[in-house]
Amino acid sequence: MNAYSDTFEIKTGGKGTYEITEQVARVVTGTVTVFVQHVSASLIIFENADRTARVDLEAYFDRLVPEGEDYFTHTLEGGDDSTSHIRMVLTRSSEVVPIADGRMLLGTWQGIFLFEHRSSAHVRSIVVTVMGD
Amino acid sequence: MNAYSDTFEIKTGGKGTYEITEQVARVVTGTVTVFVQHVSASLIIFENADRTARVDLEAYFDRLVPEGEDYFTHTLEGGDDSTSHIRMVLTRSSEVVPIADGRMLLGTWQGIFLFEHRSSAHVRSIVVTVMGD
Amino acid sequence: MNAYSDTFEIKTGGKGTYEITEQVARVVTGTVTVFVQHVSASLIIFENADRTARVDLEAYFDRLVPEGEDYFTHTLEGGDDSTSHIRMVLTRSSEVVPIADGRMLLGTWQGIFLFEHRSSAHVRSIVVTVMGD
Repeated sequence: MNAYSDTFEIKTGGKGTYEITEQVARVVTGTVTVFVQHVSASLIIFENADRTARVDLEAYFDRLVPEGEDYFTHTLEGGDDSTSHIRMVLTRSSEVVPIADGRMLLGTWQGIFLFEHRSSAHVRSIVVTVMGD
Repeated sequence: MNAYSDTFEIKTGGKGTYEITEQVARVVTGTVTVFVQHVSASLIIFENADRTARVDLEAYFDRLVPEGEDYFTHTLEGGDDSTSHIRMVLTRSSEVVPIADGRMLLGTWQGIFLFEHRSSAHVRSIVVTVMGD
Repeated sequence: MNAYSDTFEIKTGGKGTYEITEQVARVVTGTVTVFVQHVSASLIIFENADRTARVDLEAYFDRLVPEGEDYFTHTLEGGDDSTSHIRMVLTRSSEVVPIADGRMLLGTWQGIFLFEHRSSAHVRSIVVTVMGD
């Protein structure tokens, strides 16, 4: 059994979803853990075929966690400060995907996406850990 | 250390929660990763003793992410299309459970459930990966 | 490759977030899985520098999943019964963090927190599993 780790960076152009799905073939059976090292961006597994699904997702989150709520106290970095952290908590910092026969077992419509919650562009670090036989 | 992977199918009769908790005894210390290969169904760890907890959960999600919102654009498969994807993002595609002494370390009231978000019946594929010593 | 497991308890003083971040140095490359064995408390990775971020998170969840909704049927343990379970589902029972060079690869502002959803004080059991080379 083996364990590998790698880190890569992704530049975002502000709020939205950015696909980062990649095939991993260094183990035959095991898991890939994808982890984002930030508290105002997150990871999701989502529908990757029809772009409108992501349009609706982003519109939904704009309603579910509005920016600049009256009761927010954590506003040093602007109206999207607490909003970004809360959207991150409602999604995930890591995704774990199984590997068999040397490939990730994603379903037909599943892609891995970085979900940027900040309005401005950022560089985000993502760690990929592969473990298995 | 060893890694095992297995896939099984579950038939759902439409929206709702379906328990899939199983004991795994092929490693002594490690983790089980359960992964659902779909974008309109998800996994949750939830209270498995009193059925009313799941009734309330489902009623809550019907309110949190209503079907057929005016602003949805991803509607090709009906009023539950974007709704299903968003409910999936607010829950999980994978659950990771620790193993010690050859058994999953679930708490007394924890069960693993498939959360079906589509109104119609589906067959869902679930991958189980066991890794450890 | 090795796998280790350990369980610890944390006493909560009722609703709120409790940091449990710890450095783990028993493997060089791999993952740490943190798992809470309860259905009315959960785990989050969150901003750990400025306490106001957590104040806003807690205020948000009080609005997102109010206690004692009229339609709740699972009320045996009080107005926070179903509310606690639903808040758990919207967050996580486990967090997975990568390890490289013998330390957890948390970002600068990332801490691991227990999120207590019950109004009264509890003792919560948390399982830590370390796997890797």
